[in-house]
Amino acid sequence: MKRLKKLRNLMAERGLRHVLLTDPLDIYYYTGYKPVDIAFFLVSPMSAKLFAFQLDNETETLNFDVSLIKGLKELKVLRKYKRIGYDSVSMNSRIYRKLRGFGIRLKDETDMIREPRRTKEAGEIEKISKAVRITKSILRELKISGTEKGLAKDIDIEIRKRDCSNAFDTIVSAGKNGYFIHHRPSRKRISDRDLVVVDAGAKFDEYCADVTRTFCKKPGKREKEVMENMKNIHDRLLDSIRDGVKVKEVQDLYGKLMKKNGYRVMHSFGHGVGLSVHESLGRVLRKNMVITIEPGMYIKKFGGCRIEDMVLVRKGKAKIF
Amino acid sequence: MKRLKKLRNLMAERGLRHVLLTDPLDIYYYTGYKPVDIAFFLVSPMSAKLFAFQLDNETETLNFDVSLIKGLKELKVLRKYKRIGYDSVSMNSRIYRKLRGFGIRLKDETDMIREPRRTKEAGEIEKISKAVRITKSILRELKISGTEKGLAKDIDIEIRKRDCSNAFDTIVSAGKNGYFIHHRPSRKRISDRDLVVVDAGAKFDEYCADVTRTFCKKPGKREKEVMENMKNIHDRLLDSIRDGVKVKEVQDLYGKLMKKNGYRVMHSFGHGVGLSVHESLGRVLRKNMVITIEPGMYIKKFGGCRIEDMVLVRKGKAKIF
Repeated sequence: MKRLKKLRNLMAERGLRHVLLTDPLDIYYYTGYKPVDIAFFLVSPMSAKLFAFQLDNETETLNFDVSLIKGLKELKVLRKYKRIGYDSVSMNSRIYRKLRGFGIRLKDETDMIREPRRTKEAGEIEKISKAVRITKSILRELKISGTEKGLAKDIDIEIRKRDCSNAFDTIVSAGKNGYFIHHRPSRKRISDRDLVVVDAGAKFDEYCADVTRTFCKKPGKREKEVMENMKNIHDRLLDSIRDGVKVKEVQDLYGKLMKKNGYRVMHSFGHGVGLSVHESLGRVLRKNMVITIEPGMYIKKFGGCRIEDMVLVRKGKAKIF
Repeated sequence: MKRLKKLRNLMAERGLRHVLLTDPLDIYYYTGYKPVDIAFFLVSPMSAKLFAFQLDNETETLNFDVSLIKGLKELKVLRKYKRIGYDSVSMNSRIYRKLRGFGIRLKDETDMIREPRRTKEAGEIEKISKAVRITKSILRELKISGTEKGLAKDIDIEIRKRDCSNAFDTIVSAGKNGYFIHHRPSRKRISDRDLVVVDAGAKFDEYCADVTRTFCKKPGKREKEVMENMKNIHDRLLDSIRDGVKVKEVQDLYGKLMKKNGYRVMHSFGHGVGLSVHESLGRVLRKNMVITIEPGMYIKKFGGCRIEDMVLVRKGKAKIF
């Protein structure tokens, strides 16, 4: 109920009386139940109601107001509200058009809806911490050999053995393939001289980890240099992270450091992590946000190097999980 | 190119010159590449072009027209077309509104877009067949004991060991939990008298399996009866499946058989399977469609029983994979 209160306060600030949540992770966050099908959670000042499809009959066990529906038509009742905030990323265009067709007045409030999930509670930090610990221990014990596909398989099996699931599809990119930021593991054999980017994450009790290591058994001069540079940029970024710092400031610092070392910036310095593996950061870093720092360089026909850690934003220096 | 030709023929029939695909599986189907981020594939009578975001730089290796974009703004070029068919399920409302804001005229053509994927080619049937074979062999060798969660874990590890991934989250529901159609595995211990519904699927080379078995070590009278009834309904449905049969006819038969046995119909008799684990069937079953037959009964405070097989629709009797 503390979480709903947070959301309702934001709603009140914006003079908004109703929001309709459609992201299953948002619904899980507020209700403790992750719908298996499309579902709608209507939050109003004094009440909250879940509309779920019939197939999702486990909602019958929930301890709050649930309406099992057969079709979208039953959402026509929402017409009586003057204005409803909604999440434009998780609502598909078919549903959007249908609801609008009913005469429901929808207002894009995606940012506001995401706001409460940005800073994490103690219990959430504990789960994330466990997910990261498991991921890091798997990466630490990993034997770098065989093919990209084989390595990804080893990681995934370990994740599942430790009672987790994959937070996302494991990335393993060796040698030249490292240039491709989100490379899908191929049959390529890993050689001792390859930089091997391994980006993996366990999901423990619905909370995600996202960690990247770059390995190289027998680094040449260039590989060594690249790995050192990324480590240095990583550490400089880490030093800059604290409560109150603007996201743009950190990104600018990242750009400056990359440029100084002669690398192109190909993505942002990091992102939020929680129930979802990619959460938006908003404008300003705040205490108890969990974010990644992931400097990465990508050079065509050479390869890639990325070091990604998850950190907890604090008043003082951020803490690596 | 045969696939694109199929789509272009449908477009021509409907007097539609351009469609914009946004479902990653559709894009994979036509290009052989599954985007890792949001992407747009514009199909026109004589050309096709992929718009992918910068992060998805592996698209640079593709052998067709690719445009790496930084933002949606770059899709403004599409304004020049009179009318563009789009897929309202995979396009979220934010992108829909953005494109409309550019003055792009979008027309919901989801059904037409899905049509070519409905019937499977020989190569696709082979991959599906392998995914099903792996899934069935895992279910055959499964030791039914421990907890729901533990059983799901055993299955998932086996799936990954055999170079597949999960086509969907494994369902294990024992005893009373079987009432919940899409139950998430819990810590509940499985007892010998429980009906245990296990719904699992391996994904092999992007193609999905979806198979359900209901186990019971020491079935009582009621459990035996339920399992027999479901098996009979399953076989009757199987007999009804062939090229040219209306989907509604099969659903009506399912309803009739369920009613005769005193069960409530809680879902449809089946669905299509392919790159996606749930594909719509359209109105009429046709040769080379791959579908499930999955009669299921769900009784509150007692449990559930579902038998799900995947079959290939043929001129004559359907073939179980």
